[in-house]
Amino acid sequence: MQDVPELVAQAREGRPRAVARLISLVEGASPQLREVMAALAPLAGNAYVIGVTGSPGVGKSTSTSALVSAYRKAGKRVAVLAVDPSSPFSGGALLGDRVRMSEHASDPGVYIRSMATRGHLGGLAWAAPQAIRVLDAAGCDVILVETVGVGQSEVEIASQADTSVVLLAPGMGDGIQAAKAGILEIGDVYVVNKADRDGADATARELNHMLGLGESRGPGDWRPPIIKTVAARGEGIDEVVEALEKHRAWLEEHDALTRRRARRAAHEVETIAVTTLRERIGDLHGDRRLGALAERIVAGELDPYTAADELVAGLTDGA
Amino acid sequence: MQDVPELVAQAREGRPRAVARLISLVEGASPQLREVMAALAPLAGNAYVIGVTGSPGVGKSTSTSALVSAYRKAGKRVAVLAVDPSSPFSGGALLGDRVRMSEHASDPGVYIRSMATRGHLGGLAWAAPQAIRVLDAAGCDVILVETVGVGQSEVEIASQADTSVVLLAPGMGDGIQAAKAGILEIGDVYVVNKADRDGADATARELNHMLGLGESRGPGDWRPPIIKTVAARGEGIDEVVEALEKHRAWLEEHDALTRRRARRAAHEVETIAVTTLRERIGDLHGDRRLGALAERIVAGELDPYTAADELVAGLTDGA
Repeated sequence: MQDVPELVAQAREGRPRAVARLISLVEGASPQLREVMAALAPLAGNAYVIGVTGSPGVGKSTSTSALVSAYRKAGKRVAVLAVDPSSPFSGGALLGDRVRMSEHASDPGVYIRSMATRGHLGGLAWAAPQAIRVLDAAGCDVILVETVGVGQSEVEIASQADTSVVLLAPGMGDGIQAAKAGILEIGDVYVVNKADRDGADATARELNHMLGLGESRGPGDWRPPIIKTVAARGEGIDEVVEALEKHRAWLEEHDALTRRRARRAAHEVETIAVTTLRERIGDLHGDRRLGALAERIVAGELDPYTAADELVAGLTDGA
Repeated sequence: MQDVPELVAQAREGRPRAVARLISLVEGASPQLREVMAALAPLAGNAYVIGVTGSPGVGKSTSTSALVSAYRKAGKRVAVLAVDPSSPFSGGALLGDRVRMSEHASDPGVYIRSMATRGHLGGLAWAAPQAIRVLDAAGCDVILVETVGVGQSEVEIASQADTSVVLLAPGMGDGIQAAKAGILEIGDVYVVNKADRDGADATARELNHMLGLGESRGPGDWRPPIIKTVAARGEGIDEVVEALEKHRAWLEEHDALTRRRARRAAHEVETIAVTTLRERIGDLHGDRRLGALAERIVAGELDPYTAADELVAGLTDGA
């Protein structure tokens, strides 16, 4: 067993090994999970959580790395949570992708963690918010959550951020792909990366059209900007940071930050509750109860709804 | 409100409109769902459920249609449940794809129904078993459940059949695709359709290799056959039917049919139970309770696990 208060204290001092251990504890659904989460609750809520998503090949890692540099220059403590099975970031503290994140590897003000789809119930949708909570409580000012805009759960994770950045690149038929992947609804800031390539303007126009940005909005509505970048050369990154800060200011001005975070917390609670109940049902699988119910159904003595009611009532007893 | 006993009686007589209404009732999660399922329970359990799956383009609809013809020739009442958003079968009774199913459209011994991904919780994994139960109770001898071997839930549905047929076609790199889609584990009978095309033998060999059919098995083990067909001309279909009947006999001989159906029923109960619980949690979404918990989390007064416990305890009260 880990000494949780001691780990939390060390994480607060910015010690990466303590942060790593805490994340492992919450990610692995350890028996100490609840103790950890209870200890972190009063400490979290200060970090600005930025979702960065886009299809493979648009330059997410490069863009994330450039954003890390920009925030470091501003003196912020930064964490990167790369939620992506195919991510170049390897697991654990400070072990980033050698090419793209190497400049941050020796920086104690940067914490990098990758998270792949885990086997346990609930998966990423379940584990990512826990890890964000640890990084938040550990005193990170900015948490960049990088996800691939492919799976539904990854999109969901990105949409749960304070601000969501959606990346595209020219010449990939990307607008349509983005629409298909459902990431066009979630962006607060859009970035057309690799803007030195042919077709960047066309992609931006197409995006503008698809987002209906030409249409009139209410005076208080947020109007997602479209920014062109060449992340590999750092071009346009300052504009992205500026847009992020503007969105954050907008959120605070409209009292939307707390509302968004409350929605995120509600989603988190719901996911945990469903996972808990699913596990309880899973526990019954080897159980004679479910087997006996199934046999009665096959024999025509029982219908599956009545059986499910009995099963749910059984869970209730165990609550 | 529908007169459920009357509908069930009409469905038993093979009246397609009654069958269609019952399926709509169970599919749409109507308030009468439980009444319908309770009425059907003692009537179901006689149909032989055959799953037919494969990637798009392998000839699933043509093969299904050919199997319908074969079973009709043997005097069986046949139902087709096409679980596929892209299926050519249009919804409702007796309205099949004009080209491929037209020969069955006017046959009162054939019932055709398509089922696309519905919006309600649980989706196809939830709705398909209910529809199968209706068709079974309505006196169908054979139910062909056609699914696209792409999504996880479609594969799951196919794997829940009494016998699963997995279709491939030559020259599509299909073996590897099938392996990726996870349909290589579920087949009881494999069919290489479009066998008049180049590469059919190579596909069969590759499949044989991937399935490890060359390896020795226990004396009582089922050895999935690989059958070559040209479904559009009806070639090889008799062999497929023969293989299906052999597998059914094998299941009965080894007491595996009841076991398989009990497993299917257990899965069904589990899905209903999870859906029920999810819905209850969803009902709480607009609820002040979840909102209040979320606000306390954002304020740092509560951790999400303790909140989830309260939520689950709340569900318990409502059980």
